[in-house]
Amino acid sequence: MPPSRWTVSTRLDVRYDIRETPGLLDPANPTLADILTSDARGGLRLVLVDHAVARLYGARIEQYLKEYNISHRLLELSGDENRKTMGQVLGIISALNDVGTLRVSDAPVAIGGGVVLDVVGLAASLYRRGIPHTRIPTTLLAQVDVSVAAKTGVNYQGYRNRIGSYNPPPLTLIDPTFLRTVSARHISNGAGEIFKMGLIKDAALFELLERCGPALVAGKFQSTTAAEAIGRAIAGMIDELENNLWEKELRRAVDHGHSFSPLVEMRHVHELLHGEAVALDCLLSAVIAHGRGYLGHHTIDRIAATAAGLGLRTWHPAFGDTALLMQALTDTMRHRNGNQNLPVVREIGRATFLNDVSTEEISDAAQHMRRLGERQEPKLAHHGTNR
Amino acid sequence: MPPSRWTVSTRLDVRYDIRETPGLLDPANPTLADILTSDARGGLRLVLVDHAVARLYGARIEQYLKEYNISHRLLELSGDENRKTMGQVLGIISALNDVGTLRVSDAPVAIGGGVVLDVVGLAASLYRRGIPHTRIPTTLLAQVDVSVAAKTGVNYQGYRNRIGSYNPPPLTLIDPTFLRTVSARHISNGAGEIFKMGLIKDAALFELLERCGPALVAGKFQSTTAAEAIGRAIAGMIDELENNLWEKELRRAVDHGHSFSPLVEMRHVHELLHGEAVALDCLLSAVIAHGRGYLGHHTIDRIAATAAGLGLRTWHPAFGDTALLMQALTDTMRHRNGNQNLPVVREIGRATFLNDVSTEEISDAAQHMRRLGERQEPKLAHHGTNR
Ligand SMILES: NC(=O)c1ccc[n+]([C@@H]2O[C@H](COP(=O)([O-])OP(=O)(O)OC[C@H]3O[C@@H](n4cnc5c(N)ncnc54)[C@H](O)[C@@H]3O)[C@@H](O)[C@H]2O)c1
Ligand SMILES: NC(=O)c1ccc[n+]([C@@H]2O[C@H](COP(=O)([O-])OP(=O)(O)OC[C@H]3O[C@@H](n4cnc5c(N)ncnc54)[C@H](O)[C@@H]3O)[C@@H](O)[C@H]2O)c1
Repeated sequence: MPPSRWTVSTRLDVRYDIRETPGLLDPANPTLADILTSDARGGLRLVLVDHAVARLYGARIEQYLKEYNISHRLLELSGDENRKTMGQVLGIISALNDVGTLRVSDAPVAIGGGVVLDVVGLAASLYRRGIPHTRIPTTLLAQVDVSVAAKTGVNYQGYRNRIGSYNPPPLTLIDPTFLRTVSARHISNGAGEIFKMGLIKDAALFELLERCGPALVAGKFQSTTAAEAIGRAIAGMIDELENNLWEKELRRAVDHGHSFSPLVEMRHVHELLHGEAVALDCLLSAVIAHGRGYLGHHTIDRIAATAAGLGLRTWHPAFGDTALLMQALTDTMRHRNGNQNLPVVREIGRATFLNDVSTEEISDAAQHMRRLGERQEPKLAHHGTNR
Repeated sequence: MPPSRWTVSTRLDVRYDIRETPGLLDPANPTLADILTSDARGGLRLVLVDHAVARLYGARIEQYLKEYNISHRLLELSGDENRKTMGQVLGIISALNDVGTLRVSDAPVAIGGGVVLDVVGLAASLYRRGIPHTRIPTTLLAQVDVSVAAKTGVNYQGYRNRIGSYNPPPLTLIDPTFLRTVSARHISNGAGEIFKMGLIKDAALFELLERCGPALVAGKFQSTTAAEAIGRAIAGMIDELENNLWEKELRRAVDHGHSFSPLVEMRHVHELLHGEAVALDCLLSAVIAHGRGYLGHHTIDRIAATAAGLGLRTWHPAFGDTALLMQALTDTMRHRNGNQNLPVVREIGRATFLNDVSTEEISDAAQHMRRLGERQEPKLAHHGTNR
């Protein structure tokens, strides 16, 4: 008898929705209540809320759930990047176990920024090997980026998102009015990811930021122009992710700004936010692209000025540390299965990938970036505050 | 402007192989080396080995890898059910991070029983949000059940597999000669899952066990009859899983024996192995089915005698504790989204589901099961030894 062989072949269909819902916590708005009622099965529902959001909106959340008789337990989580740990994930799993959360119904709700959404997303993907949840992003970064993403993650041993999963929740509800209480610095931070999307995917979005950046940030992204910027960023993200949700393809334009930044951000976690580090990485990559002859002087000036206009830093001393940049790139290359796959801007709105960037090229580009950064007048001086 | 809505819609195609490969560690057999060479990219490969397997086969594993120049680091893991913890998972993730494991290539290899495969499977599904690995099951239970499964898991706070994921590795290699060193008790344990498959899916398989059970166990499943039993169990499992890999459908025949057993097994982890607890649960369910008029006296006698013939216990005092059984069922119902979905044998080789089983019915069935169990002469007296 020859040795036996078997093949298992199947497919998973995934579909999820992202819905803009202004005034989500207004008792007159039944959207959230309808969603929660539709999957209710009599159990307690866990509502996991970022601590700052709980401070600002806790009473309104409780009020809303009471109004609609939604039996629940509210649990506050830390939205601090330093608490994006497996410890917080295990705490959430204990809480799910305590309230006896079912496999499908009475699914938990996560309300907060990217940290809370990533941590709850991972807990939900691990508890009983995965349960659904509803996601309510409350920062600009979470609304434009995390809200579309299927990724969850926690930091581990000094590495960003070293542990995680792909687990898109069935529904994400975006209420832009949450942004009114987000600090100016965190608004700029979220703008960093919109900036990235404009650079690699959507020239009109970039031009919108170039034109209106300072006004958008000052107005906390509440205007119709802001809605357009958010909508374009989300649509661009969906277009990039939809056919590569599990990242089988490791050349990803949306990784622009995410090649050097992960380690830099972790090493300077008290100084740099995610979107700030991403924007700095975009600038370094733009200068590399300039060195290759892709972008002219005028274009990299526009890029740096747009970042500055959004209140983003255009230089940080970490980018003067070539050894750190190379260490970051080495780890990122492992994530890209040994390849650089460095996404750079070919022209505004379009990316290409480099696989032969040298240490010298990076070090020279960083020098150039420093000079470029020093020329930029910071339009909004809130660095180092409101972390 | 009306609020915006977006839908993300995509699919994941999953395909994985299970290959019988006798003499896997024989230097003359290039199968494993060919596989490892095909995805090599110059890095260190992590080889994660059950500690008992390392003691028995460590030298041969090292010799084989040396012969084929496969640069690697061997790490021993505990195969003890008590060490099926997130702690072991995090240890593996640290090791992957230390050797700098890539996203796809130089993928780790797991060699061991169900505990090691479940723990490594979870680590591999979390490190960088998921990397492939190769799975080499070394116990009968792992060869007939874990080898087909997509599930990973660890125990948490006294609950079996409370934390886990679906993450089938691309390839599982089954070498039946590993079973020669598996203790008689663990052979019987694995036979428990084959017994379950016969009951719900494959009358011919059940009859094979009924006829040859004692000989199969005594011969450590090395004969052609044993190969047939293993092959039928694997094929049955694939048939049940292939269209429900992520368990979207929560009425699962393969859950037979897994309704009361998970908590019983955890509470008596020093006395009961997984397959033993599963077989006991099958017997309780058979008696419930008998009470419903599905199975005659003669049939439940045959079922109990077949279990005994495989060296499995037919009674354990935990099944006299109705409160424990009900607590177990309550937790299992959460896993089935609030429904009992209790799979029972309708006739040998076919299952049906009950959703209205009462406490009294369970308690009566347990009494009957005790009397039935007491009538069985244990054919192989190895309970409580070789754990
Ligand atoms: N899953 C993904 O694909 C993905 C994508 C991008 C970023 N991320 C992750 O997101 C995280 C960053 O997200 P973030 O920028 O939202 O950070 P965050 O979650 O730390 O939130 C920023 C700060 O704002 C506070 N906050 C939240 N909502 C508020 C509100 N409405 N009003 C006032 N304060 C509020 C929080 O308490 C926190 O202090 C990073 O960990 C990053 O890795 C994940
Ligand atoms: N993923 C799944 O779908 C799935 C399915 C069924 C069971 N499981 C899990 O599998 C686990 C039970 O697996 P198991 O029965 O293999 O237990 P196990 O991994 O604990 O192995 C049993 C014992 O045999 C030893 N051993 C392993 N291979 C050996 C060999 N060739 N020779 C001698 N000794 C050897 C181990 O060190 C251990 O002491 C449970 O935790 C269960 O939850 C998972």
